Amino acid sequence: MSNTEAPVSVDLETLMAPTAKVEQFMAEFLANRPFPINLRDAIGYALLGGGKRLRPLLVILSCEATGGKVDTCLPAAAAIEMVHAFSLVHDDLPAMDDDDLRRGRPTLHRHTSEPMAILAGDALLALAFEVLACRLTDAHVLSTICRELSIAANNMVAGQVYDTLPQFDEGLSDREKLEVIHEHKTGALLRASCRMGAVCGGADAAQLDAITRYADRIGLMFQIVDDLLDVTGCSEEMGKATGKDLDAGKLTYPGVLGVDKSRTEVERLRGEALAALEDFGDRANPLRDLCEYMAVRTS
Amino acid sequence: MSNTEAPVSVDLETLMAPTAKVEQFMAEFLANRPFPINLRDAIGYALLGGGKRLRPLLVILSCEATGGKVDTCLPAAAAIEMVHAFSLVHDDLPAMDDDDLRRGRPTLHRHTSEPMAILAGDALLALAFEVLACRLTDAHVLSTICRELSIAANNMVAGQVYDTLPQFDEGLSDREKLEVIHEHKTGALLRASCRMGAVCGGADAAQLDAITRYADRIGLMFQIVDDLLDVTGCSEEMGKATGKDLDAGKLTYPGVLGVDKSRTEVERLRGEALAALEDFGDRANPLRDLCEYMAVRTS
Repeated sequence: MSNTEAPVSVDLETLMAPTAKVEQFMAEFLANRPFPINLRDAIGYALLGGGKRLRPLLVILSCEATGGKVDTCLPAAAAIEMVHAFSLVHDDLPAMDDDDLRRGRPTLHRHTSEPMAILAGDALLALAFEVLACRLTDAHVLSTICRELSIAANNMVAGQVYDTLPQFDEGLSDREKLEVIHEHKTGALLRASCRMGAVCGGADAAQLDAITRYADRIGLMFQIVDDLLDVTGCSEEMGKATGKDLDAGKLTYPGVLGVDKSRTEVERLRGEALAALEDFGDRANPLRDLCEYMAVRTS
Repeated sequence: MSNTEAPVSVDLETLMAPTAKVEQFMAEFLANRPFPINLRDAIGYALLGGGKRLRPLLVILSCEATGGKVDTCLPAAAAIEMVHAFSLVHDDLPAMDDDDLRRGRPTLHRHTSEPMAILAGDALLALAFEVLACRLTDAHVLSTICRELSIAANNMVAGQVYDTLPQFDEGLSDREKLEVIHEHKTGALLRASCRMGAVCGGADAAQLDAITRYADRIGLMFQIVDDLLDVTGCSEEMGKATGKDLDAGKLTYPGVLGVDKSRTEVERLRGEALAALEDFGDRANPLRDLCEYMAVRTS
């Protein structure tokens, strides 16, 4: 998918480099965890099969921005990616979105079987808490991180319900519904990523607040850009200003606000995200770069 | 189902009484947790719809046996019941056992829908960790409990894989396979129940070891009695010494050991479970009563 947005000035490869450690950490943890071989293979297929690793990256960069070292936050980074992987496996199931492909490969239930995909998804969710409980050595950090992750995971599940089995309070506007869906389904986990990283980095209350503001802005920006890419991608290919989300009757930001106002919203959120990092100094530069990249990404 | 076993001398109602507090605790926690109304209803249907509450009871009695108060272990008791409820909801799914009834009522996916049952099961698993993280106030206790529960939950999922999608090492005998399945699928959560209760009660290492021995004995006994009831229940009704597990080609203790040797095994385990509690004094009497009840239960 190509478009005419400004070229990305951020070196994405350098920015993403720290996630290689998470990759290795997850692979080792899984290899050493006694499991039936077919279950381990299924989990590995879903967890280690590529992906943007945006959430672990946010954990690491937020940890570093608040003065922590990467190694202290690897369990948290792995845990949040496990929760993300669990959600993808279950979302793809025949009873849910019934998707055959994920990241260019057969979805897990196509690769193995539906029962195995259900069970491997369950295991990924439980593993997220196992990796925290077994690898985070500071009990107080574990306590906070476990609370952040469990609440985010439940909010994410709630977001999936709001999105696919909606039963909203009467009187909500489309924009309000869209915000409820986004905040739960996508926002909660991105927010938790940043907050977990900051907690591992030893953030004080003011830093944690600032990181949370950053997280909420880039989280919403991420969603609006996603929706915009769906529209602009399709409009170029098909000559109409609607994408598959709009066709499917899904609420989207361009659909509710229009394309121009959505773009203005992205700019506003980019500015607010950067402003939230004002007091952080150079250590937050990678978080700033990531924000820039997310604002102008084309895929 | 009736049989000719010795009458149960234990007053089950008195023994179970403390679980009313868990019931109330779970209901309150769920009522106060912001969720879409349909998701909360689905979770409540699965979690609060009755059941033996054996696992919460083990948490409470193990906590009391080691000198703790019931109130300190309610989060742990609720969490383990949530994990149990999650496993039942997902086991019942069409892609798994495809069961229509559970505890005399429609299974959750029959009562609501398959997507909702998948999501409510996911939420129950995540809620187990949320209730621990939000309601256990001692960070060190939380750390230990979270480790126990996450490992047990993963072992339970692994047990489901061993049982329904078996891929065993070559050379395992039927009895060894049966043990692997039981230890993971049923044993892990019963063991965790007792250990979590003991940790909440402030058990020292020797007490925790003893409680673990008790848990492993009653866990296996529970399974063998279950298998025996399947055989004896069916044999009385249908005039043959095989039950639905045997008919379904499932490995069972009576199937592998024979009925008489299975009964001898129950007696041995009962003795060992009681012996494990030797040093506990009167505070462990309810655990002893529960063991007696489990050995002679008829349903």
